[in-house]
Amino acid sequence: MSWFGNLFKKETTSAHIAKDRLMIAIATDRQNSLIPNMDEMRAEIIRVLEKYICINDIEIKKENKGEVDLLEIEVIMKK
Amino acid sequence: MSWFGNLFKKETTSAHIAKDRLMIAIATDRQNSLIPNMDEMRAEIIRVLEKYICINDIEIKKENKGEVDLLEIEVIMKK
Repeated sequence: MSWFGNLFKKETTSAHIAKDRLMIAIATDRQNSLIPNMDEMRAEIIRVLEKYICINDIEIKKENKGEVDLLEIEVIMKK
Repeated sequence: MSWFGNLFKKETTSAHIAKDRLMIAIATDRQNSLIPNMDEMRAEIIRVLEKYICINDIEIKKENKGEVDLLEIEVIMKK
């Protein structure tokens, strides 16, 4: 079990996500050179979301913490 | 800041992801009815990964914890 899985296991029991939201996190090692077109890939994932979800608002956050690059996408859907 | 963001903030400082891996997590409320084609959307996101990454192995895990449906995708890339 990865740290990624573990941290979700810990948190999801008490966690709550509003019914109108979807959250996506993408994590990679900062030194990762195996995804040369990472920005393009991320943009295409967002286009997939737009295709399936009526998006009201979208918040995209990039973070670099320690060895990990993290992209968080929070989608607020239209009811 | 969402719980989703918060839990990453806590964990990523000490966290490590191997250089050949990419992790994606998708979280939604279990009662969410705003994404009627969720399974199809997830499949399409995986197809985007396959387009940009030389995948060696992929592990997909679905979990239902409390109010949260969580999909974890762990991709091991070819070096």
